Amino acid sequence: MTRVCVIGGSGYAGIELIRLLNGHPKVELYHIVSNSMAGRKLWEVYPNFKGCLDVTYEQLNFDKIQQCDVIFTALPHGVSSEIVPKLYNMDKTVIDLSGDFRYNNPKVYETWYGLQHKAPDVLKQAVYGLPELYREEIKKARLVGNPGCYTTCAILALAPLLKHNIIEQNNIIIDAKSGTTGAGKGLSPGLHFTQCSQNIKAYSVAVHRHTSEIEQELSLVAQREIKVSFTPHLIPIKRGILVTAYGNMNKEADWDTVFHSYAQFYKDAPFIRLYEEGKLPETNHVAGSNFCDIGFVLDKRLNRIVIVAAIDNIIKGAGGQAIQNMNLMLGWNETTGLMFPGYYL
Amino acid sequence: MTRVCVIGGSGYAGIELIRLLNGHPKVELYHIVSNSMAGRKLWEVYPNFKGCLDVTYEQLNFDKIQQCDVIFTALPHGVSSEIVPKLYNMDKTVIDLSGDFRYNNPKVYETWYGLQHKAPDVLKQAVYGLPELYREEIKKARLVGNPGCYTTCAILALAPLLKHNIIEQNNIIIDAKSGTTGAGKGLSPGLHFTQCSQNIKAYSVAVHRHTSEIEQELSLVAQREIKVSFTPHLIPIKRGILVTAYGNMNKEADWDTVFHSYAQFYKDAPFIRLYEEGKLPETNHVAGSNFCDIGFVLDKRLNRIVIVAAIDNIIKGAGGQAIQNMNLMLGWNETTGLMFPGYYL
Amino acid sequence: MTRVCVIGGSGYAGIELIRLLNGHPKVELYHIVSNSMAGRKLWEVYPNFKGCLDVTYEQLNFDKIQQCDVIFTALPHGVSSEIVPKLYNMDKTVIDLSGDFRYNNPKVYETWYGLQHKAPDVLKQAVYGLPELYREEIKKARLVGNPGCYTTCAILALAPLLKHNIIEQNNIIIDAKSGTTGAGKGLSPGLHFTQCSQNIKAYSVAVHRHTSEIEQELSLVAQREIKVSFTPHLIPIKRGILVTAYGNMNKEADWDTVFHSYAQFYKDAPFIRLYEEGKLPETNHVAGSNFCDIGFVLDKRLNRIVIVAAIDNIIKGAGGQAIQNMNLMLGWNETTGLMFPGYYL
Amino acid sequence: MTRVCVIGGSGYAGIELIRLLNGHPKVELYHIVSNSMAGRKLWEVYPNFKGCLDVTYEQLNFDKIQQCDVIFTALPHGVSSEIVPKLYNMDKTVIDLSGDFRYNNPKVYETWYGLQHKAPDVLKQAVYGLPELYREEIKKARLVGNPGCYTTCAILALAPLLKHNIIEQNNIIIDAKSGTTGAGKGLSPGLHFTQCSQNIKAYSVAVHRHTSEIEQELSLVAQREIKVSFTPHLIPIKRGILVTAYGNMNKEADWDTVFHSYAQFYKDAPFIRLYEEGKLPETNHVAGSNFCDIGFVLDKRLNRIVIVAAIDNIIKGAGGQAIQNMNLMLGWNETTGLMFPGYYL
Repeated sequence: MTRVCVIGGSGYAGIELIRLLNGHPKVELYHIVSNSMAGRKLWEVYPNFKGCLDVTYEQLNFDKIQQCDVIFTALPHGVSSEIVPKLYNMDKTVIDLSGDFRYNNPKVYETWYGLQHKAPDVLKQAVYGLPELYREEIKKARLVGNPGCYTTCAILALAPLLKHNIIEQNNIIIDAKSGTTGAGKGLSPGLHFTQCSQNIKAYSVAVHRHTSEIEQELSLVAQREIKVSFTPHLIPIKRGILVTAYGNMNKEADWDTVFHSYAQFYKDAPFIRLYEEGKLPETNHVAGSNFCDIGFVLDKRLNRIVIVAAIDNIIKGAGGQAIQNMNLMLGWNETTGLMFPGYYL
Repeated sequence: MTRVCVIGGSGYAGIELIRLLNGHPKVELYHIVSNSMAGRKLWEVYPNFKGCLDVTYEQLNFDKIQQCDVIFTALPHGVSSEIVPKLYNMDKTVIDLSGDFRYNNPKVYETWYGLQHKAPDVLKQAVYGLPELYREEIKKARLVGNPGCYTTCAILALAPLLKHNIIEQNNIIIDAKSGTTGAGKGLSPGLHFTQCSQNIKAYSVAVHRHTSEIEQELSLVAQREIKVSFTPHLIPIKRGILVTAYGNMNKEADWDTVFHSYAQFYKDAPFIRLYEEGKLPETNHVAGSNFCDIGFVLDKRLNRIVIVAAIDNIIKGAGGQAIQNMNLMLGWNETTGLMFPGYYL
Repeated sequence: MTRVCVIGGSGYAGIELIRLLNGHPKVELYHIVSNSMAGRKLWEVYPNFKGCLDVTYEQLNFDKIQQCDVIFTALPHGVSSEIVPKLYNMDKTVIDLSGDFRYNNPKVYETWYGLQHKAPDVLKQAVYGLPELYREEIKKARLVGNPGCYTTCAILALAPLLKHNIIEQNNIIIDAKSGTTGAGKGLSPGLHFTQCSQNIKAYSVAVHRHTSEIEQELSLVAQREIKVSFTPHLIPIKRGILVTAYGNMNKEADWDTVFHSYAQFYKDAPFIRLYEEGKLPETNHVAGSNFCDIGFVLDKRLNRIVIVAAIDNIIKGAGGQAIQNMNLMLGWNETTGLMFPGYYL
Repeated sequence: MTRVCVIGGSGYAGIELIRLLNGHPKVELYHIVSNSMAGRKLWEVYPNFKGCLDVTYEQLNFDKIQQCDVIFTALPHGVSSEIVPKLYNMDKTVIDLSGDFRYNNPKVYETWYGLQHKAPDVLKQAVYGLPELYREEIKKARLVGNPGCYTTCAILALAPLLKHNIIEQNNIIIDAKSGTTGAGKGLSPGLHFTQCSQNIKAYSVAVHRHTSEIEQELSLVAQREIKVSFTPHLIPIKRGILVTAYGNMNKEADWDTVFHSYAQFYKDAPFIRLYEEGKLPETNHVAGSNFCDIGFVLDKRLNRIVIVAAIDNIIKGAGGQAIQNMNLMLGWNETTGLMFPGYYL
């Protein structure tokens, strides 16, 4: 068994990652770090684990880290970049779930996060951990910056269209709706049940950080500069992101041709599920799974395409994707421990 | 007291209209028609009315109609246009909540509804019942086609921008999210709690009928042909619509200038609430009220505007707006019986 | 117009009270006090009020209090009893929504709240504000202790049975389920949407403070000491309490006889709605209204009665009941400003 | 791999069973029967399975049945008893999820289900499939009647107390709250999102069929006749049952003593999780798992015990328990394919 460590194991991304690692056939959860919960049994904090996983949250312990092969960091941005360089220099395989190691250019990070990057040299070693775009690079990497949840869904929805030059580079609109787990464990009035239930709101319009990540990756795929309008919304569901994206067609095309572009782009991607004409993803189809479901409608009246994509934000948008990256980095089958259906009900 | 009749009083639009009419100081609910529930006490069907409104659902009775001044028809499209001409010819004031009397051109109706219009002559007499656009015409009308719920919210969000030529006529995207009351009382798997709770889905992408209504009205405001992408989504809330609309700015403008255009356009509109910079509507702000809340963000990076608008779909999007129209048609104060805050909690 | 003051107007009980007072035809909201929000417009804090109520939260101002006739205090227990004596001594009509003035015996308060009572002399002047039990006393009172939400529902469900000696005094079980508004505005993990949605839990089992209030009142009605098991549960709805209560029948009785006992007990109670045989209340029937709905099943197999009662916890269980008390205290019709149906949808 | 067949694979119990069997390491889903869906891909009906399980719903095929070792029947009561005898006579291991094979006495079935039992002889061969009570009998059985969801939770909450004579046999109250999956896939107004969301209701009070199952089993454990008040409620969550049960203590006892009785009763039960003093189960702790969580409070003031138990109604209350039974019947480890934590988020 490969020993793994999770740093930041008491937040929502961390605990979901732990739940999935607990079901992974090739790893042992060896060191679970949480400053706020150190000394407490994990199942006291998350009672669903009682009887299944008898581990204790610990303070960061470099001796134990030394005995691990893979380290997952699920820490706030700005904190990750303080610890990741040490882990990387210990020759560990590191998968970081924060925003700190997702950028090719630290200036972009600094603009959107309002922080100077603390480890620009290590950042250069990092591969962007979206296997559907960087499978081969990830296999060779020792440090991966695991993409954001909105980002994963938006990029996977649009990349084939930009790669094959099907849509114009302008007027790309990404209207995204997320469940509340995406906002994490922290308390706030907007996440208080009485205010969140029966409500929908847009937030961070035109300024959400994930915009920069989406633009970086879509520009690389398109080989030209792509800018997008990205609008996140909070909806009263626990898990799931639905992205509704809009683009103008470069030329008329029929549905099958566009579908073929998607199918080809994702021909080696085991977690992409493409929908036949007339069907579209819903979050309920993916909740509890590592899949990204994609469907689209061609609006010939307006020569526009509307793409709908769905993921589980804390699996394919966080912990599941992190494991998918681990599988690739360690030379295992990409789907190990991840090929299960969502729970639907 | 003015006697009113509601035809189609057992569906969701009808019952909400009845609830609001019950609180209106100048009307008497004189004849409540429902084929499916005729003979049953209304409070047996809707137990919330017990002790408040002791009326019985009846079969359509033209003698009773004759004694009413105002008739509301809350019937399916295609059915309304069979009965409304008779009511209109009885010299009644008629407010129709279906799609049948919303169109200037019956051909547009026929294209989007797939039905030949049954009363094109009477249709010519109908005024589009959006008071914020047609206040003076409604005051003189005897037949009003009450707008759709998505439509109301989308038009109110965009009309000032098109009137003042602030946004381009192309690339207008309307991404809308609705609660389940908008889908009515009929049972279907997608509205079954187990499948609807914790889920979001897009539907009728590029083909929803309200598109044609939005385009008709925005084109009239803009005085040029406007076509829009309109995408409705179903979200797990009972009431409320949130519209997130996108347009490209014709030229650079600052936030205050755009706000001023809205403020001027709606200077006589008591149910429009404009949001200051940095704030945006949420459905929770309007649920239970007749208000339409509007806010916007200028994305100077992309020279694009993102407008967020919210209404209660069965009040401002149905029964409340119908009463607002009645108030105008009868020469009463527009806000009579409607000037209450939403319930928020 | 009668001038009223609300002290503690930014919590959930306070704001719902204000919403209802805003719709009351005989009062003017003259002074709305909130320490935490003083200086802010009420509609900035609760955007649903925008355009409907243009008032500002203020610091407590005794000059303004002096100009009011009725003072509502919606403050935490222990805080109310510091301010209420001053108000009472200013000859004001005072309705207190906390637990501080609900007890006949300050010792009971001290046992269950763990606090010494700060104003036992004024407590003696207070009438328990449940109009269905104390209508005549309330009419003559100048200080009312407005009952708790669980309490209201539980007492109204059981009082007629104890009054008429229909059930045994032992083995009374009250299993109650409440929406989240009952827990107020304060943030906590159990009210965080992600943890509260899709969850149900029991809490404060055997030790909830409302137990003592229920026992006090049921004992008075029964004229013997009544003790009850009371178990509150939190369920993922915003408003509403459902009480399921169990008692052993003293002797066999048929359904009609028991119904008659309820009907007689509540013959003057405009907000009690009794259900016919075979029907039971649901929270959806009362949400948004001041009604208390009551139904019951006789289980002849076990010679036991199961009573189901429902209220809107922040209307009949808080603000609505406070207004019902005000109406009585000022000699107005008990239902003034309160006789509207719930919203159901 | 052991070949298994699921008859009734398109309902909620059936599809959840299939989801769990799909993750079970020792079985192959060989024949999935659904009359209504025959010929359709399972993943077309339940899109969460796309890419994970490529099987087709089939008509019942006895040749294929012949090649299976284990047959699960997830059919309505009255239908199961028509097919199960044939399967049993084919020497198959049969696990029936309906009410048809849960009774020792067909008369009880006939009283509560209002149907004559169609296979009383085969019924005699059936073992009641609650492993925590009948582990050894199940190991030897070839036909198991899998318990109902409410039943499982209620019996597990109370059995140790009756076994050890801790509570009186009278005055046992079981107040249960269930999520909507328990009501299955069929459409009805009470399960329509608009009516079910934000609502709670009691139903089938004093007459729910599960009462008879609970009484049968508790009487056997207690070795005297036990009768219970059982009240089910529908709450707006998808999965989960919470049982709050009440009993009068036979004599005073301290918390540790009672806990010890539970611990001893369940010493070999891998899916029972007992809670320490001061903690109680919530449905969120078990949703997505096969665990039954149990906690209790001793109310010394009233000499009463309040037990709170939680299960996932379609896992421990249906499909998971069926697999637990299969594991025992085939001589496998009881926890095979079932020892995973709930998903909590």
